[in-house]
Amino acid sequence: MSANEESGSPTLTARGAATRSRIVNAAADLIYAHGVDRTSLDEVMAKAGVSKSQLYHYFADKDALVLEVIALQTERVLGAQQPHLGALDSFRALQLWRDALIQLNASARAKGCPLGSLASELANDSESARKRLAAGFEIWGDCIERGLTKMRERGALAASANPHELAVALLSAVQGGLLLSKTTQTSRPLEISIDMAIAHIARHMSSKSERSSRSQKRR
Amino acid sequence: MSANEESGSPTLTARGAATRSRIVNAAADLIYAHGVDRTSLDEVMAKAGVSKSQLYHYFADKDALVLEVIALQTERVLGAQQPHLGALDSFRALQLWRDALIQLNASARAKGCPLGSLASELANDSESARKRLAAGFEIWGDCIERGLTKMRERGALAASANPHELAVALLSAVQGGLLLSKTTQTSRPLEISIDMAIAHIARHMSSKSERSSRSQKRR
Repeated sequence: MSANEESGSPTLTARGAATRSRIVNAAADLIYAHGVDRTSLDEVMAKAGVSKSQLYHYFADKDALVLEVIALQTERVLGAQQPHLGALDSFRALQLWRDALIQLNASARAKGCPLGSLASELANDSESARKRLAAGFEIWGDCIERGLTKMRERGALAASANPHELAVALLSAVQGGLLLSKTTQTSRPLEISIDMAIAHIARHMSSKSERSSRSQKRR
Repeated sequence: MSANEESGSPTLTARGAATRSRIVNAAADLIYAHGVDRTSLDEVMAKAGVSKSQLYHYFADKDALVLEVIALQTERVLGAQQPHLGALDSFRALQLWRDALIQLNASARAKGCPLGSLASELANDSESARKRLAAGFEIWGDCIERGLTKMRERGALAASANPHELAVALLSAVQGGLLLSKTTQTSRPLEISIDMAIAHIARHMSSKSERSSRSQKRR
């Protein structure tokens, strides 16, 4: 490790940024597998291949590292749902996103949502972590809401539909489904729960859009 | 503490049973507030007012104690929802139960579901804990399912309604809503999410029951 990397300058060198990112990634993986409290800084150092002085160069303490893990997991969770999450503006897009989420959950062997698990573990004990997790869920909910708002503007959803509340309902269903799937080690709870939330959105179809959907089904 | 209490006999004396129960209750409260890993056996002993030898008389190790905490929290969580949970056999009963859940969440200052928090923390790391938590959720789901099955038998729900899947959907909504409420420290996500699940059940009303509900509304 170069002297430059440990110089403490506010601008990280490329190599410094890579080391920092390696630490956060290692911590995120370990914490996803075992939780914050079952992950020691020694394990993070070993997995990232960094020394104690390197770790403390970038992070004042474990809490500071955990806040960065929350930021990284927010990016990862939202990124893994792309391109679907960025354009949830039709029932077909919602269905494709649903299929992608179920596939992601299966690939992760139903180990739960990285953000949901962090929220469950940290929200009661750390106000800074709770706020950052709430912000992560808000970004997630906003992505869904933007798609539903477009559907309402286009007349696919009725003018009376509330995109914000529908997005909160859908995100709750995803979180609850992921938790029950993690606990039962089957994907059914997630499937059942997202299907409920999408059917709930479909109840807010505009009558014009319903007529056209029915005539499409008849064809 | 009497010699009798520490005799290791398979039948607990009344005093032994009370001590054992005091330990599990203390552990359940601490774990609900801070999680399994942030709760030490020393804290449990202090809160329960027992010595190390008393604690180890009743529990081989922390894992054994945690399994008892899961059993106790299952009882507590289901008990707190009574009398509603035992008779969820009408839309009015579902509404009263919904109101009770929202009240319980507010009284607990939205600290999350004791079972959901344990599941999130333990399911990936302890197979014995995961199975016991899955069994707890199954009992909960079965209570809901029994009520919905009665509604279907009575013709309030259509013959095509699937009480098992509707119960899983409702329980997922409750879990997701409780988690988002805990993270945002507002009760809205829980309200929105249970309301979605009850509206979802209402979509499976039998046409006979729908007509009578409409005529009631007109009166």
